[in-house]
Amino acid sequence: MIPRYSRPEMTAIWEPATKFKIWYEIEAYACDAQAAIGVIPAESAAAVWKAKDVEFDVARIDEIEAVTKHDVIAFLTHLAEHIGSTEARFVHQGMTSSDVLDTTFNVQLVRATDILIAGMDRVLAALKTRAHEHKDTIRIGRSHGIHAEPTTMGLTFARFYAEMDRGRARLVAARAEIATGAISGAVGTFANIDPSVEEYVCEKLGLSPEPISTQVIPRDRHAMFFATLGVIASSIENIATEVRHMQRTEVLEAEEFFSKGQKGSSAMPHKRNPVLTENLTGLARLVRMSVVPAMENVTLWHERDISHSSVERAIGPDTTVTLDFALHRLAGVIEKLVIYPDNMLANMNKFRGLVMSQRVLLALTQAGVSREDAYKLVQRNAMKVWEQGKDFQTELLGDADVLAALSADEIKEKFDLGYHTKHVETIFARVFGDS
Amino acid sequence: MIPRYSRPEMTAIWEPATKFKIWYEIEAYACDAQAAIGVIPAESAAAVWKAKDVEFDVARIDEIEAVTKHDVIAFLTHLAEHIGSTEARFVHQGMTSSDVLDTTFNVQLVRATDILIAGMDRVLAALKTRAHEHKDTIRIGRSHGIHAEPTTMGLTFARFYAEMDRGRARLVAARAEIATGAISGAVGTFANIDPSVEEYVCEKLGLSPEPISTQVIPRDRHAMFFATLGVIASSIENIATEVRHMQRTEVLEAEEFFSKGQKGSSAMPHKRNPVLTENLTGLARLVRMSVVPAMENVTLWHERDISHSSVERAIGPDTTVTLDFALHRLAGVIEKLVIYPDNMLANMNKFRGLVMSQRVLLALTQAGVSREDAYKLVQRNAMKVWEQGKDFQTELLGDADVLAALSADEIKEKFDLGYHTKHVETIFARVFGDS
Amino acid sequence: MIPRYSRPEMTAIWEPATKFKIWYEIEAYACDAQAAIGVIPAESAAAVWKAKDVEFDVARIDEIEAVTKHDVIAFLTHLAEHIGSTEARFVHQGMTSSDVLDTTFNVQLVRATDILIAGMDRVLAALKTRAHEHKDTIRIGRSHGIHAEPTTMGLTFARFYAEMDRGRARLVAARAEIATGAISGAVGTFANIDPSVEEYVCEKLGLSPEPISTQVIPRDRHAMFFATLGVIASSIENIATEVRHMQRTEVLEAEEFFSKGQKGSSAMPHKRNPVLTENLTGLARLVRMSVVPAMENVTLWHERDISHSSVERAIGPDTTVTLDFALHRLAGVIEKLVIYPDNMLANMNKFRGLVMSQRVLLALTQAGVSREDAYKLVQRNAMKVWEQGKDFQTELLGDADVLAALSADEIKEKFDLGYHTKHVETIFARVFGDS
Amino acid sequence: MIPRYSRPEMTAIWEPATKFKIWYEIEAYACDAQAAIGVIPAESAAAVWKAKDVEFDVARIDEIEAVTKHDVIAFLTHLAEHIGSTEARFVHQGMTSSDVLDTTFNVQLVRATDILIAGMDRVLAALKTRAHEHKDTIRIGRSHGIHAEPTTMGLTFARFYAEMDRGRARLVAARAEIATGAISGAVGTFANIDPSVEEYVCEKLGLSPEPISTQVIPRDRHAMFFATLGVIASSIENIATEVRHMQRTEVLEAEEFFSKGQKGSSAMPHKRNPVLTENLTGLARLVRMSVVPAMENVTLWHERDISHSSVERAIGPDTTVTLDFALHRLAGVIEKLVIYPDNMLANMNKFRGLVMSQRVLLALTQAGVSREDAYKLVQRNAMKVWEQGKDFQTELLGDADVLAALSADEIKEKFDLGYHTKHVETIFARVFGDS
Repeated sequence: MIPRYSRPEMTAIWEPATKFKIWYEIEAYACDAQAAIGVIPAESAAAVWKAKDVEFDVARIDEIEAVTKHDVIAFLTHLAEHIGSTEARFVHQGMTSSDVLDTTFNVQLVRATDILIAGMDRVLAALKTRAHEHKDTIRIGRSHGIHAEPTTMGLTFARFYAEMDRGRARLVAARAEIATGAISGAVGTFANIDPSVEEYVCEKLGLSPEPISTQVIPRDRHAMFFATLGVIASSIENIATEVRHMQRTEVLEAEEFFSKGQKGSSAMPHKRNPVLTENLTGLARLVRMSVVPAMENVTLWHERDISHSSVERAIGPDTTVTLDFALHRLAGVIEKLVIYPDNMLANMNKFRGLVMSQRVLLALTQAGVSREDAYKLVQRNAMKVWEQGKDFQTELLGDADVLAALSADEIKEKFDLGYHTKHVETIFARVFGDS
Repeated sequence: MIPRYSRPEMTAIWEPATKFKIWYEIEAYACDAQAAIGVIPAESAAAVWKAKDVEFDVARIDEIEAVTKHDVIAFLTHLAEHIGSTEARFVHQGMTSSDVLDTTFNVQLVRATDILIAGMDRVLAALKTRAHEHKDTIRIGRSHGIHAEPTTMGLTFARFYAEMDRGRARLVAARAEIATGAISGAVGTFANIDPSVEEYVCEKLGLSPEPISTQVIPRDRHAMFFATLGVIASSIENIATEVRHMQRTEVLEAEEFFSKGQKGSSAMPHKRNPVLTENLTGLARLVRMSVVPAMENVTLWHERDISHSSVERAIGPDTTVTLDFALHRLAGVIEKLVIYPDNMLANMNKFRGLVMSQRVLLALTQAGVSREDAYKLVQRNAMKVWEQGKDFQTELLGDADVLAALSADEIKEKFDLGYHTKHVETIFARVFGDS
Repeated sequence: MIPRYSRPEMTAIWEPATKFKIWYEIEAYACDAQAAIGVIPAESAAAVWKAKDVEFDVARIDEIEAVTKHDVIAFLTHLAEHIGSTEARFVHQGMTSSDVLDTTFNVQLVRATDILIAGMDRVLAALKTRAHEHKDTIRIGRSHGIHAEPTTMGLTFARFYAEMDRGRARLVAARAEIATGAISGAVGTFANIDPSVEEYVCEKLGLSPEPISTQVIPRDRHAMFFATLGVIASSIENIATEVRHMQRTEVLEAEEFFSKGQKGSSAMPHKRNPVLTENLTGLARLVRMSVVPAMENVTLWHERDISHSSVERAIGPDTTVTLDFALHRLAGVIEKLVIYPDNMLANMNKFRGLVMSQRVLLALTQAGVSREDAYKLVQRNAMKVWEQGKDFQTELLGDADVLAALSADEIKEKFDLGYHTKHVETIFARVFGDS
Repeated sequence: MIPRYSRPEMTAIWEPATKFKIWYEIEAYACDAQAAIGVIPAESAAAVWKAKDVEFDVARIDEIEAVTKHDVIAFLTHLAEHIGSTEARFVHQGMTSSDVLDTTFNVQLVRATDILIAGMDRVLAALKTRAHEHKDTIRIGRSHGIHAEPTTMGLTFARFYAEMDRGRARLVAARAEIATGAISGAVGTFANIDPSVEEYVCEKLGLSPEPISTQVIPRDRHAMFFATLGVIASSIENIATEVRHMQRTEVLEAEEFFSKGQKGSSAMPHKRNPVLTENLTGLARLVRMSVVPAMENVTLWHERDISHSSVERAIGPDTTVTLDFALHRLAGVIEKLVIYPDNMLANMNKFRGLVMSQRVLLALTQAGVSREDAYKLVQRNAMKVWEQGKDFQTELLGDADVLAALSADEIKEKFDLGYHTKHVETIFARVFGDS
């Protein structure tokens, strides 16, 4: 977790104080449930809630842990300092540390995911707005980095919208993967605690009870969770790369927003670097790097070993914080991206109509010219464009053999951009449900 | 794709003949759709179906490709050899190679996933059967590889069932991710082909039309697909590791089935190696290694570059074939796993009741003994067991201070295994919906 | 291993026939060594060499393996068919299958590495030639994809040379990592075979004896080996990406060689796709994906488990074959890369001298103008270039305030390209040792 | 970087204060070199050293950066506050931010590596000591987790020593990879600064000049560096896994040291968990996860983009800190590992001599018994051991058919452990150079 790539809303989830608050809630709800089935006195359960508004003293808990060498015991000791040791003696009864730790981790991941979904919604809103704004802004489509056929900038935004919308659905599914809790004891048999306690606590925390746990919640859930974040990060890199390409000096179809105050802008107006999207490219790698260790975490020896724990201490906060930051940085880039439609047109016309050569070829064959002859006709005019800088349409209109097959109007029609944009509405309807 | 780790049913999907068959179907259905909207003559579309039962000659297509240097053109040329070049001239009209290639790749992945789901079902059936068979087979639960509290072998199978059942649901979701097709032209604008053609072809192939494509189908879908396979592979490794542990000489709670004929079995009866599950551990790594490149494939330059292609030529077949083989190998291991309940009991009793020390400790405190005193009482008896090989229950029954707090019956009750298995039914009901 | 991305020279190493030949040599040399210390009769050892020129019958060995279920035994049985079972009875004495398998794998890796080094040498030779050819070919240096300061194409080639030369040194080091053999028995104690046998066989095969092995050669060696290939693949991607950028329509500073015959070239002369370097980008991912599983292979249980084996069956051939192909494809791309110096100049001048703005700024401050004032002077002229398409030098020469600080000659000197290339010789001397 | 998995010695390298100190040194040495060639006044260069003992005020620099949005400029501004703006005006002349940033990063990596090497030396010393201590401590060697043949605990330590010694050599090589500096300007041409400055600064900092840089030092170096750390982490996991296996309840051949004070030890003496080595298993994953992003960082667009930067801000500190901590934790585990030779013997004898069956088989065939008959003889005695719990040697000595081929002494000799340890000295000499 690197401060400059963090938003406080997300880092708060991973602060010790938040963790202890969740621990407290789990313990308090568990006491309620234990009291309800008569395992502990109702007064004792009620007494635990005296600490409801306490800000737990993290330094004090650390101090106790330095002695007990056990984090949960340290917390319980500190809790007893608030509610009294008599009342506290029933807290945590029949539970195992992992019951608290694993359930808490999932609560944190769920909350983190809710923030990620909100970040995604901001990205989606920005993409949708920009897509409609540039629905008809013509630019050249490129395959292999080479001009192919015209498309529109709105379609570019729309496809990123569709991709991110899939990402959103994946996030929702990933949230469900890790929205479980377990209070099932040392090896998951509920030997020392009734399953109803687990059910009650989970309900209160907005989780489902883990159908079957060991000492821990199974880690295939977390592997799926982090894998999903990795896919979303890859989509961020995809969008970021498009912007980086658009901003490069020779293309200059768009630029990241550059505030007036930013140094060096006006003495070197050409030197506006797409640093935000380059940064997003790097952040995507950081998010993605959690995927493999999360998968390696799935294999635990028998009812648990603790190999997963150090990994999760790192990737839990780091990955959610980084992805959250990246989503908001991306949203900002899209919201404020400066688009240059004129440059788009200029780029498209760089080879003076040559991108239309395939349509002309097709038209000639459809007009009855043999494929070989059609090819030669196109070729000889294309070469004049390529080598002598002529205009393709003009050359075709001056080629008697071409005119023998196609009328001047038919030739001109081949350069009509409307031909390429006629289904933009259809596609937008598919993506945005526009009517 | 390594022959020894392949099943013919899955490799068939990736054979050239299968690929060409799908190409053919896409072209033929596209012709139907083109005819329906009057773009090409109905007779020409109908003529394409003359090749319906043709086994395409892969060697012949390769021969043509050696000349044309283009796989799709080579195929179309060969197709024309079957249906006549006059009729063939409308085939592929308005389409781009990627329309065929990407849609075909997704058809292959969908079919592969259906086979994977069937493999998963076999694994699930095996786990369910073995879980019920050993529902009450007591074994010691272990955390950190160290004895903790009793559980049952049935619970072990049940948790693997639950994990794999999640894997199955993920496979179904992954199938939906890649069950799309695109016939949208060079940059995805449908400039040269009507969207209705895409819709028709997709419907015929059991796919959804990709809402918005470029020259290609977006690769976040495939990233999610391969990530999902990686998670499932990790779950396979998890189960495999449990078996490997159970089979090790000192534990010997289970063995992979060892047929009578296998060499060396009887002269070295101790030397039965869990080679299948070790192999599964390796195969899991092979499946997992496709995850990162599939994520790196998401970023394509503008409307497409071809960097993803070589990656997919490898991981498409390799990953599905390997996972398929692994699922069936795993199913076989589970179906025939030899379980040794006696050894399970013997292992549990290795320290003559010490695993019950925590229950005794709890009972003493609940009987009013202070936590410090209770600890000392348990400790002094535990030490006799640990150091002198005594039996824990016997020692406790002979300790007057213990007897002052707990009756002999109460002590004996602490060693009752039923205490640990009382919720097995509940858990089975959660996992299997047993009533 | 995908045929279209394979060269026969490398695939030959991984063919069964090659493997059996190496097995044979190991067994034959081991017999010589055993005879030398009197463990087996000299005549028996000599007899093994009768099979020296035999082409082992792979199908026959497979047939035997189908019965024995053991590959090494199958081979030995087949060998006995050639040299007679009496003579054959001393073959393999005291050895373990892994002695043969692991030593063979390393022989294959060593041979593969020698081919990789040769491939690297071809890449290096190409880079060196092209570097010298374009030592003084001016092009604009870019940071963030944005024009920065001039450099030369020769420097670009030279830095790739330096990077690949490091890669070559790493390959040599990686070769040493895996150039060991082991013939040490079931758990590596030499209980049944004398260490001198290992020493002799290794010497004959050009390997070092593994100082200490278990049943297997330790896999940290192979992890380091595959990690090294992953780094080299990443460098290939680095070069490939540069070419892809240079070829994109708007840049067009270079193109992959495009043979006359290749379809579509002349009717769409703009549509020459950098498919080879895009392919190299994908191949790099394929090579890199072996790195993590090779690292996961390092951990083996006790004296060995077989989890690594399936991984190596895949990544051994796949990774070396793919990297070999990639090196030669890359060499071809570099050797024949078409460079467009005119376009390089045109691109550099796209903003009519603005890339020199920083030099002017520096000159002004060095001439005593305050930093603030210097900035304003540069800015007001730069803006005219940026917004009105003026020429930067011309504007400066017409700005009285600028002329108050710098003479016309001094201004012109700031646009002298020699300023930027004056240390090219120095750098070439560092990289190539040119004098 | 997780505090609980960090050692202050290593984290200190990555603190802002350290970074600024290195920036300062680079700037100061560069001024000296600039003065030496007459580019800046000698007095100005000398003046920079006035700040030699200054503790730079990180908060103040951050404050300035909040305004300038540029870290290097913020530092230079702060530096000017110490040495006076007149003297400071020559600082950084002709340099680019990356000259400072990249060279600093490499200085940090070099220092980190020196600490890692020291950590490795501690691990090596521990392994060497324990190897010699347990050179002759017999334990059973295991393949596939199944008993194979006897070996010694000393050999286990020795092979880990050899593996880690290779790791040390790799660390030294990795250090050389990243021990370079660059002061070559905006695109690496030295247009604005003389190469002699780079040479001087590098020499002072203990680095080599980067032979050819762009705006940045090439990242293949860092990819190789992090890949190497990943391999070493994998070796740590290998050792950790051995300990975890040895400590599991049924094996109990060793235990991590368990201090008297640690809770729960004596009431549950069986419940000592190998938490340190489990933790090491997780830490290995964390170190390893930097490998792929470091490789993805190699590809930069043209003369640089900034995608690598965020990745390195994370993996630079995180990976070195984690690996450093892991090395020291591992060293502690080895130094204090409690070894149980009696349990080793007991485990070996679990199947009452059966592990010697292969030696007996070999002896019978060498005594002239046919392989089939020898197998049957061994088998019928082995089965009595396996099924009826008899002792293998006793049974053989009572089998007349066996005695017909082998004398009683010969049979007994087959159970001599010295047979298996006779080459331990040889192996130790290879590994440790013991004479």
